[in-house]
Amino acid sequence: MIDNHDETGTFVLKRTSKFFPRRSWRSWLIGRPLPTADAPHQTIGKAVGLAVFASDALSSTAYATQEILMVLAIAGSGAFGYAFPISMAIVLLLVIITLSYQQTIHAYPGGGGAYIVARDNLGELPAQTAGAALLTDYILTVAVSVSSGVAQLTSAYPEWFRYRVPIAVGMVLLVMLVNLRGVRESGITFAIPTYFFLVMMVFTTGYGMLRFFMGTLGSVENPPSLEVEHIVGAITPFIILHAFSSGTTALTGVEAISDGITAFKEPRSKNAAITLLWMSAILGTLFLGITFLAGQVHAIPSEAETVISQFSRTVLGGRSFLYLATITSTTVILMMAANTSFADFPRLGALHAGDGFLPRQLTYRGSRLVYSYGIVTLAVIASMLIILFKASVTALIPLYAIGVFLSFTLSQAGMSRRWRKIGRLQPEEEVQERGSILRYETGWQLKMLINGFGAFCTFIVVLVFAVTKFQDGAWIIVILIPVMVYIFFTIHHHYKKLANSLSLENYGSPPRIERCRVILPISGVHRGSLAALRYARTLSNDITAVHVSTDLEESEKVRQRWEKWGEGVRLVILESPYRLMLEPLLAYIEEVASHNQQDEILTIVVPQFVPRQRLHNLLHTQTAFLLRQALLFKPGIVITDVPYQVE
Amino acid sequence: MIDNHDETGTFVLKRTSKFFPRRSWRSWLIGRPLPTADAPHQTIGKAVGLAVFASDALSSTAYATQEILMVLAIAGSGAFGYAFPISMAIVLLLVIITLSYQQTIHAYPGGGGAYIVARDNLGELPAQTAGAALLTDYILTVAVSVSSGVAQLTSAYPEWFRYRVPIAVGMVLLVMLVNLRGVRESGITFAIPTYFFLVMMVFTTGYGMLRFFMGTLGSVENPPSLEVEHIVGAITPFIILHAFSSGTTALTGVEAISDGITAFKEPRSKNAAITLLWMSAILGTLFLGITFLAGQVHAIPSEAETVISQFSRTVLGGRSFLYLATITSTTVILMMAANTSFADFPRLGALHAGDGFLPRQLTYRGSRLVYSYGIVTLAVIASMLIILFKASVTALIPLYAIGVFLSFTLSQAGMSRRWRKIGRLQPEEEVQERGSILRYETGWQLKMLINGFGAFCTFIVVLVFAVTKFQDGAWIIVILIPVMVYIFFTIHHHYKKLANSLSLENYGSPPRIERCRVILPISGVHRGSLAALRYARTLSNDITAVHVSTDLEESEKVRQRWEKWGEGVRLVILESPYRLMLEPLLAYIEEVASHNQQDEILTIVVPQFVPRQRLHNLLHTQTAFLLRQALLFKPGIVITDVPYQVE
Repeated sequence: MIDNHDETGTFVLKRTSKFFPRRSWRSWLIGRPLPTADAPHQTIGKAVGLAVFASDALSSTAYATQEILMVLAIAGSGAFGYAFPISMAIVLLLVIITLSYQQTIHAYPGGGGAYIVARDNLGELPAQTAGAALLTDYILTVAVSVSSGVAQLTSAYPEWFRYRVPIAVGMVLLVMLVNLRGVRESGITFAIPTYFFLVMMVFTTGYGMLRFFMGTLGSVENPPSLEVEHIVGAITPFIILHAFSSGTTALTGVEAISDGITAFKEPRSKNAAITLLWMSAILGTLFLGITFLAGQVHAIPSEAETVISQFSRTVLGGRSFLYLATITSTTVILMMAANTSFADFPRLGALHAGDGFLPRQLTYRGSRLVYSYGIVTLAVIASMLIILFKASVTALIPLYAIGVFLSFTLSQAGMSRRWRKIGRLQPEEEVQERGSILRYETGWQLKMLINGFGAFCTFIVVLVFAVTKFQDGAWIIVILIPVMVYIFFTIHHHYKKLANSLSLENYGSPPRIERCRVILPISGVHRGSLAALRYARTLSNDITAVHVSTDLEESEKVRQRWEKWGEGVRLVILESPYRLMLEPLLAYIEEVASHNQQDEILTIVVPQFVPRQRLHNLLHTQTAFLLRQALLFKPGIVITDVPYQVE
Repeated sequence: MIDNHDETGTFVLKRTSKFFPRRSWRSWLIGRPLPTADAPHQTIGKAVGLAVFASDALSSTAYATQEILMVLAIAGSGAFGYAFPISMAIVLLLVIITLSYQQTIHAYPGGGGAYIVARDNLGELPAQTAGAALLTDYILTVAVSVSSGVAQLTSAYPEWFRYRVPIAVGMVLLVMLVNLRGVRESGITFAIPTYFFLVMMVFTTGYGMLRFFMGTLGSVENPPSLEVEHIVGAITPFIILHAFSSGTTALTGVEAISDGITAFKEPRSKNAAITLLWMSAILGTLFLGITFLAGQVHAIPSEAETVISQFSRTVLGGRSFLYLATITSTTVILMMAANTSFADFPRLGALHAGDGFLPRQLTYRGSRLVYSYGIVTLAVIASMLIILFKASVTALIPLYAIGVFLSFTLSQAGMSRRWRKIGRLQPEEEVQERGSILRYETGWQLKMLINGFGAFCTFIVVLVFAVTKFQDGAWIIVILIPVMVYIFFTIHHHYKKLANSLSLENYGSPPRIERCRVILPISGVHRGSLAALRYARTLSNDITAVHVSTDLEESEKVRQRWEKWGEGVRLVILESPYRLMLEPLLAYIEEVASHNQQDEILTIVVPQFVPRQRLHNLLHTQTAFLLRQALLFKPGIVITDVPYQVE
């Protein structure tokens, strides 16, 4: 590849596919590397789109009803009757959010996630807040979905209950591996589990309704016992609001389609919008149906057996094959939901990093074209949460959904601000803004109202959330999000400062370096130090060898040997009465460097012998390394290692 | 200090006391640094010498009797009667060893530790074996002495028994700190505790004998219960030999004086020899007395209360003030014994290191003029042993004393070899050997016999030891010593090879470097890379800037900016389809370097920006560091960082 080196030109481009990564255990685990050109550009239709984007939203029906009942249980099992009205309120909220997002989808055909909408319309602080909120929520999606999936499994196989934490962590790692492989989303891999779940759920719910109307439904046989430590006795508005906010977890994942509009076939906005409508309709219906039937069969919220399990075995007549199919489909869709976060979290992280609010390394796509750092980070934090909260959905739920509702609020507020700006335009006027084109539209007032109302409602939910669940764990998120935003801005500040100080604007070329002095620290006179001397002579004629002496007899030997071998180069011996090696050298170097002129540079040439085995480094003091660490911060000093390979 | 720089001469010696180490938490903990000139040269007389060197040997009387009884207990308490005859055999062994060492002291007035005697007379392998044996034994001296000291304490204060492990570890750390401070051995600090112990022990034993002869001695009141899991019932030769080898721990520390002859006043050999005689006499008497009286009062070996405690409270009439004084003096002398190891272990380690059998860093004396690395190593390993063996003397004892007896054997064998050499000399003939002067002596035959007999007896003890205690833990030492010797020789091999390959013998100066090429890897065109370019121009006119491209649009920008700012230097863009950064660069560098001639060198100039805060490094890929790691092993390549400080 060097053969076509063009010795005369000043610019050479090497096109080659030679730089193929080395094979290792990693390629065995995650597959052979993929070239950049392999990035997918495939688009999907509505039916597949529903499968790809709905798993997160639909899977929440697996735990939302149970979590409502879990809260109501504080007021005794008599309060379970409130669950259905509460779920109707939640479906109303779903309608509002769906209408809001319809408008976002049309306004941002290039993808309108909360981060982008907030950034373009509200500014950096709201955008970073929305981003931080979403990032925490993606982590909780993984923890909650996987924990709930394991809870479904252990409902069918109670003997596995004691292993739920290792099973859950194992599942997270499995999903991580799948994502590190970067499986091409072939549509079909999503369609099968999603439609399997849909069919099973629609069938179970429909059959349940049928039996309800025929009066043959009955109650759960051998229900688990109610595990409430302390029953208050009377229902209070606080308990109802608390139950409501637990139930809103059903709405997590509704935003997914607005993030991924570009994946749809043209006309993409229209296709995406129709898919969103379908998804919301199915979600609302399923959620209402499950909550209603769970009430009718007197399901009991419990860690030992999920409400879904109780409800479906009652409807389907015991632990039959159909029951197992329902439980399996629920577990699988919950895994798919976790998988969705593994795509969203790293992508959002890369967006932050691209804007300079997270370490730039997060924009790096690994050998399989996925954002490997983000994937691993997500898996590690989610696993830690699962271990910490013992894979209990009920324990995790107070941390969940605040983030997503905060991002709903910011996104809708951003949209409403956008309509306001559009309203101020002249008809036919077009303005190019960061992410999208603003064009006058009639009826902007109504649209502003819809988004504004959406923002208002979701904001109220955030407040209800923060207040009713504060003690149970929401405080963690309330503290975490501002801390994350602070860190994001600190990082951003660093990158901006760096860019400024590296910028070539107003860059007056400093004078050419006219004088180069060399200091050559030597511990003894041997082939290594002479190799360094040989190199130093190519740099300058002003060389000073420096030896730190802790033993004057030893130093006298060094002096004599240097007289013989040192080619007449000046030797300075620094006496170190306190047996320090580095400090006298540093003091000497700094003293010499302090006389540096603008056109002068001081080079420290450090002989370093390199043992063949890395372990052997333990047998030597790492002067070169320590010197570099100490001198890195001094301007006008350059450090050069001259390695001497010991054969 | 640079003012007196002599610009014309080729050799400058800077004498200065400026290089005083920075003050830190360390100077608060271990005291202000001491200059090399402060090393002590004080000598001591016989009385102080006894105090300084006897603590290790005398303190072993605190546990030797108990450990004999502990073994005999296997055969039931009826077997305790064998303890006294066994201890007489041990005292006989003491006499043999003392006679042997008398000769060593006269032959090696400069200090005749086993390592030196074996090295000078037997060769490297026996010397390293003796050294390894002693090093393990010093560690066990610390663990056993401190554990026994704590056992004395908890005999007086049983409520502390459950805290014995933390107390013991705390004591080790305390002794470590004292030694890191490098307290000047003022003699008096040793004399007080040693003579305090001597007085208390002589008094207690003497008073006990008096009461025995008057028939008023009686038995231990409320003795602890016998804690033997499984009583064999009949005494066997194996049990007797086992008890004997446990008892030989009384003789550890006898070698101390022969190591430290130089500390004595002139005539040092004579003074040291007399001190050794005194020490052995006291040790033998005390040991016999304690064993005899422990038998008479029917003391029971136990982890809960030491035999010393039972014996002294019986003699002194209950837990009186005198009893407490005896226990305290015993605890203190045991700490002094541990302290002795903290001087011996690092000194022996430094000897090994000086000969190139351990990392050279061990010869480095810290700010307080002590071998800090060795002190810390000893404390860490001893603490680990204490934790592992739960501060139980009985559990530790099978590992103990093999080392010291192995070193006795090698040392005496070395001496006997020496006499043989002397016997072959002509009268009046003198031969200078490594460590000492060989001169013909009459009566060398007898002396050879004495040392040979000493070697033989101690060797038998080593065998008895290894066999009878193998299962109980001696196997650890039997494996460990050869492993250590192997490691020592591996290290030695490395240093020898290094010295050879650095040696200037037969060193034909390689040709002067005539051509220097430069490769300048750049990630972008900014002040950092231009600073590196500016430096590179001082090195060579043959410079190639290299940019690895994972994004061709980005690279086109780099190209354009380089055309503007690159001062006409050639730019090579390496396309990396698999998004690898380092590998394409390395492949290019190696390709270029492979064309290097003898008089050519390739310098890689790496721009590196240095953020003010170290934490910020997390926000950048450490290309410079990774490049250095990868290229260190390639000859003919020099790596230069040009740091660019971000203000």
